[in-house]
Amino acid sequence: MTDRVVLAYSGGLDTSVAIGWIAEQTGAEVVAVTVDVGQGGEDLAVVRQRALDCGAVAAEVVDAREEFAAGFCMPALRANARYMDRYPVVSALSRPLIVRHLVDAALRHDATHVAHGCTGKGNDQVRFEVGIGALAPWLRVIAPVRDSGWTRDKAVAYAQERGLPVGVTHRSPYSIDQNLWGRAVETGFLEDIWNAPIAELYSYTQDPGLPRDPDTVVITFDQGVPVALDGETVTPLQAIRELNRRAGEHGVGRLDLVEDRLVGIKSREVYEAPGAIALITAHQELENVTVERDVARFKRSVDQRWAELVYDGLWFSPLRQALDAFVDETQRHVSGEVRLVLHGGKAVVTGRRSEASLYDFGLATYDSGDTFDQSLARGFVELWGLPSRLAADRDRRLG
Amino acid sequence: MTDRVVLAYSGGLDTSVAIGWIAEQTGAEVVAVTVDVGQGGEDLAVVRQRALDCGAVAAEVVDAREEFAAGFCMPALRANARYMDRYPVVSALSRPLIVRHLVDAALRHDATHVAHGCTGKGNDQVRFEVGIGALAPWLRVIAPVRDSGWTRDKAVAYAQERGLPVGVTHRSPYSIDQNLWGRAVETGFLEDIWNAPIAELYSYTQDPGLPRDPDTVVITFDQGVPVALDGETVTPLQAIRELNRRAGEHGVGRLDLVEDRLVGIKSREVYEAPGAIALITAHQELENVTVERDVARFKRSVDQRWAELVYDGLWFSPLRQALDAFVDETQRHVSGEVRLVLHGGKAVVTGRRSEASLYDFGLATYDSGDTFDQSLARGFVELWGLPSRLAADRDRRLG
Amino acid sequence: MTDRVVLAYSGGLDTSVAIGWIAEQTGAEVVAVTVDVGQGGEDLAVVRQRALDCGAVAAEVVDAREEFAAGFCMPALRANARYMDRYPVVSALSRPLIVRHLVDAALRHDATHVAHGCTGKGNDQVRFEVGIGALAPWLRVIAPVRDSGWTRDKAVAYAQERGLPVGVTHRSPYSIDQNLWGRAVETGFLEDIWNAPIAELYSYTQDPGLPRDPDTVVITFDQGVPVALDGETVTPLQAIRELNRRAGEHGVGRLDLVEDRLVGIKSREVYEAPGAIALITAHQELENVTVERDVARFKRSVDQRWAELVYDGLWFSPLRQALDAFVDETQRHVSGEVRLVLHGGKAVVTGRRSEASLYDFGLATYDSGDTFDQSLARGFVELWGLPSRLAADRDRRLG
Amino acid sequence: MTDRVVLAYSGGLDTSVAIGWIAEQTGAEVVAVTVDVGQGGEDLAVVRQRALDCGAVAAEVVDAREEFAAGFCMPALRANARYMDRYPVVSALSRPLIVRHLVDAALRHDATHVAHGCTGKGNDQVRFEVGIGALAPWLRVIAPVRDSGWTRDKAVAYAQERGLPVGVTHRSPYSIDQNLWGRAVETGFLEDIWNAPIAELYSYTQDPGLPRDPDTVVITFDQGVPVALDGETVTPLQAIRELNRRAGEHGVGRLDLVEDRLVGIKSREVYEAPGAIALITAHQELENVTVERDVARFKRSVDQRWAELVYDGLWFSPLRQALDAFVDETQRHVSGEVRLVLHGGKAVVTGRRSEASLYDFGLATYDSGDTFDQSLARGFVELWGLPSRLAADRDRRLG
Repeated sequence: MTDRVVLAYSGGLDTSVAIGWIAEQTGAEVVAVTVDVGQGGEDLAVVRQRALDCGAVAAEVVDAREEFAAGFCMPALRANARYMDRYPVVSALSRPLIVRHLVDAALRHDATHVAHGCTGKGNDQVRFEVGIGALAPWLRVIAPVRDSGWTRDKAVAYAQERGLPVGVTHRSPYSIDQNLWGRAVETGFLEDIWNAPIAELYSYTQDPGLPRDPDTVVITFDQGVPVALDGETVTPLQAIRELNRRAGEHGVGRLDLVEDRLVGIKSREVYEAPGAIALITAHQELENVTVERDVARFKRSVDQRWAELVYDGLWFSPLRQALDAFVDETQRHVSGEVRLVLHGGKAVVTGRRSEASLYDFGLATYDSGDTFDQSLARGFVELWGLPSRLAADRDRRLG
Repeated sequence: MTDRVVLAYSGGLDTSVAIGWIAEQTGAEVVAVTVDVGQGGEDLAVVRQRALDCGAVAAEVVDAREEFAAGFCMPALRANARYMDRYPVVSALSRPLIVRHLVDAALRHDATHVAHGCTGKGNDQVRFEVGIGALAPWLRVIAPVRDSGWTRDKAVAYAQERGLPVGVTHRSPYSIDQNLWGRAVETGFLEDIWNAPIAELYSYTQDPGLPRDPDTVVITFDQGVPVALDGETVTPLQAIRELNRRAGEHGVGRLDLVEDRLVGIKSREVYEAPGAIALITAHQELENVTVERDVARFKRSVDQRWAELVYDGLWFSPLRQALDAFVDETQRHVSGEVRLVLHGGKAVVTGRRSEASLYDFGLATYDSGDTFDQSLARGFVELWGLPSRLAADRDRRLG
Repeated sequence: MTDRVVLAYSGGLDTSVAIGWIAEQTGAEVVAVTVDVGQGGEDLAVVRQRALDCGAVAAEVVDAREEFAAGFCMPALRANARYMDRYPVVSALSRPLIVRHLVDAALRHDATHVAHGCTGKGNDQVRFEVGIGALAPWLRVIAPVRDSGWTRDKAVAYAQERGLPVGVTHRSPYSIDQNLWGRAVETGFLEDIWNAPIAELYSYTQDPGLPRDPDTVVITFDQGVPVALDGETVTPLQAIRELNRRAGEHGVGRLDLVEDRLVGIKSREVYEAPGAIALITAHQELENVTVERDVARFKRSVDQRWAELVYDGLWFSPLRQALDAFVDETQRHVSGEVRLVLHGGKAVVTGRRSEASLYDFGLATYDSGDTFDQSLARGFVELWGLPSRLAADRDRRLG
Repeated sequence: MTDRVVLAYSGGLDTSVAIGWIAEQTGAEVVAVTVDVGQGGEDLAVVRQRALDCGAVAAEVVDAREEFAAGFCMPALRANARYMDRYPVVSALSRPLIVRHLVDAALRHDATHVAHGCTGKGNDQVRFEVGIGALAPWLRVIAPVRDSGWTRDKAVAYAQERGLPVGVTHRSPYSIDQNLWGRAVETGFLEDIWNAPIAELYSYTQDPGLPRDPDTVVITFDQGVPVALDGETVTPLQAIRELNRRAGEHGVGRLDLVEDRLVGIKSREVYEAPGAIALITAHQELENVTVERDVARFKRSVDQRWAELVYDGLWFSPLRQALDAFVDETQRHVSGEVRLVLHGGKAVVTGRRSEASLYDFGLATYDSGDTFDQSLARGFVELWGLPSRLAADRDRRLG
């Protein structure tokens, strides 16, 4: 039997060209797998046909949107995952899911290899290959763009020679990755980090400076997961899509930062993640109300590590599972409602309420109804400050 | 000689009444000390005269604004201090400085006691008393509002009986603390955490929804400290004041959150900190460019601990000093320029440049000029993922 | 109905005297509850009778040894809990269990109060009262030793006046707390921290310097819990008792340190915990073999926080539960055998084996059979060091 | 001019053979550099001559023992550096120092390359190459053992063919690295991790089981660094050597563990570090006495990160410098004396005293002289436990 290679197929130039090139180089049959993680854009039936037209022996489109929302975006939300306190690990979340489906396809097609179109200086190669190594270490990886010195020009020439059905004349200056949780854009002029982003970079969000009326949304959470918007029950997928739309209209979730890649370099990235940022904003405030102080303080370090780990391609690591066990336990009572105003590029919490609230009006109020026993404070303050006082005494004593 | 009490005097009802009350209760002379930390509002000469009119044997106003900006706000900026990732520890920063001046005054006046007007359920009592315990443990503390059951009504009656020159007929519904770094507001209706803030709460910031043109400012940093705005040299005090004005005009820095007080309760707080938020936003992005990855990752935990410690009243603790030593070392190269657009309630970085940048165009670019050796990646990825792969192998082996 | 007070009764002078004193002061009936956590010493039936003789209306002994071993010592073992890297939180573990049984008794006896004999400068008062506050906040606490100025002399006089059946003539110079997991000793001469401990302090351990033959034990763990010793199946209780005996004979587990109490002071403590130290030593090495690197690194911070939290009296906190969820997940594969040599005060691991091992002979060996692909290393090393190299380049460039 | 290669020369087979091999392969002249980090063994003049006899154009021996002790071992001591809580990073400490001298030699000899004899599966290759990349990125690295598939057999054949003056007939089964701070041994039979170490592995330490009298030593520290032993002033080098001798006689500092290598595998290691373990034991206890609680708790995470970083080859990273700044600040008062009993494989602290002590007899004692105000405790305990109580209330309320 002829060897088979499962290719992570996006429909773009690089992976379209890779179909024929891998077949030629290896003599293997290429199976193209496209995973729908809510990337939008082209109809995926068209993408699938293109794979066949480029020479794939089989081409599959997997609708993984519900799975992505529930199994990847929701854990990220519960961990308030923002790499470097900013980036909601958009691409990093989709890669392990794509890997899972590549491996499934490889098993179904008896493939011996998996191929991807990542370069050698980005994070995605790590996410793909570490994931495959974890799930199916017997599969070998082919990475033509990285390992065989492919360039844009070579790819264009190859496509033209063979008459492949890929548009190569117009070269988009943008390198884009998008999915349900957000959108990443890189492009040449942004590589000068003093240059500001321009309007045409954006697709998920409107200009936050446009005059419009604010939009108010009430998000209901159950154990850290959104279950209703304005009282209407939603699935995780629906919640994200709806908030992408509504928050996107108000320009929420634009990000522009210099970030630390796993491969040791800094790069400039522009992101849009309206739904993700709206949800994380609301979720964090609901945690403020329902999560106990010491848990909240420790969870910050867990959340940070979670985001770093997933960014660094280690979704399938035992540490991610152990951090999730911690997070799951903390979310038992993160249930209730948050009112969010979407406007001018911001998602602002203006109210929160929860049956599981730890906010105690009687203890907090300065008006009548105050139940806090202020006589307790003096002893507390004295013992709280005792170690500092002893240290300061010592410092004075020693001069 | 008659005993003397140094009172932290704000000019408000509670501390005005406290002058006479302390004198009566203790037979001591009261020295009123007012520290100017940029709180604005009333002329402090008027405040000083009121203290004398209320019976203080002496009244002093200390202009500590430069000291506050340079010695307290700048360390907070370098540590990106935001308690619970939100609140830039506004009041928490001014308390240790006020304590320092109270202790100075106590030494000059041979006082035996220090008095403050804090309640027993807030954080400020802790900050005052732990600070005094560290700097001058021989001073005893008088806290009439907390320890002697003072209420608003008692204070009003007391003032009226004695004809004290404090306006008591109009009761402001707001409890406000403000200084150069920001402003905190509490009030009864916000104690229902579902209620949204209203416009009249705000003083440092304009409504972010008002139509206006964006304002662009370039902030120059030297070792983590702002030294110029739009090319004009500034002191830390000038930088904060100017950005309070410019960012405040665009509604930047409004915050509304439920926070964890040190005394164990959750409370609802509304803050405004336009200059602080603008500066921290710019500073963090300059760190992204100039601070090495592992340092940046570890610094997040240092920054978090710094904010918690200062929030918790432990400015004068040895841990704060040790964390500052870490932070100082990380700021050696946090020098350069950040371009910030102020608009619609947001401060958005649109450009950054630095001679100390670790961003390397040659390594980052996907265009010509790429100097990154992609052949290194495969080995890196393999070994990076090896522990996860071995763990996944084990899990499969054991079923 | 007469009010009832449930007293945590140890059988010693302070709590014996407290029975009558509480009854007199409050008019309530006193129910004495003694919890067997493996403290040994006097027969607990004798202790129970003494409570009745001292005036208790009821006296109960609860055998909680299995519960203590399984529900408290085992979680501590899985978290390698050693406060300040030394002290295996011996007393801190038993307090929440005692609290649980006090509350049970209070419910059964319709009591309104709980009483304990702790002083006001130790940790145990915190552990008792925070525990009661969490489990049964409606119960009020009576702490005569702390709150009513009891002293040893007063207690002796009280006992003699009333002819209470407590030996008061011989005053032991030692303050001792012991249970299954270890033993704590404080005494006057140790309060000079330059003084060395003396032989008669110790009870669980023999002099480690005595000549004797080493004892070798193989401990089998299942998911972080010991299930067999030298191949014989054991319960957690049996494992601890047996290792207390065997490790104790070789002087294992003596500790002498200055430690940070929660109430803000440093104190000098001497401990013995032969079984705990033997088990933790073995468990940590089995983790070295079976736990993935990143998990192990993060778990150190979790383990540290766990020990601090339990030491600080916060067993019944949500953070302890969330940390336990993390720990539980990490222990899924901590199964296998560890060979331990007990001798000369030390428990030394000399071998370990596990079906869940992540140690891979083929990858580790330098002999034939080596399966590690050394060609991967160069790329790994280059990218691993890239951030440091860029930072060093920058430092040189800027001089 | 002919190219020159600076070779890190140990005098052993691999690097002796490398001299000729590198010369043949590259046409370059080889300069052998041997750094004395206290490894003992052969006279280094003999080693130097051997390099020349093997064909080196120049051979140098650098006495770096004082520098190693003061500049590398002391920072490790102040950070209590023990990787995985066990291994005092012995080899990891010497590598950056050797790198520094290799780079110095390369500059003096106008060399273009540096060569080392490390394999591709260990940590030392990383430490060498990351160090060289940081200090002198223009130098290229030659690693024949790793990159050119050298094996023991090839090396022996090569040496015999050319009559090189290296003993090749007797093959030691041990792979050993030793320096002032300790000694590491690997060998085939230990690769079965169930096998126990045998007596002949050890060289720095005597059998701890041999009967002998205990040895008591008083170590005086100044700011975390040992400055006297039993009252005799010592340099860091003298302190380590003397304690290697005295603690080594009592078998202190033997370690046997499975550890996580940076390259992603677990390996079995046996170490001896009598002086290091004795010093760290004493240092940690002096910290217990002189370092404030919150500092101590945070420093554990700093210490852990320091050890990981140095183990991982990142001595020359900005994070190590920033962590050192933190550590330095914490050591200002770590001055005083610790009495240590060396016996039976253990170094046991039996006394400590310090003018900078934070231990306060008056606060700690239960005897007369007690100055602790127990009435403060009740308020402290109540507020300390308030968050847990509110969370428990909530849990009960929600069932």
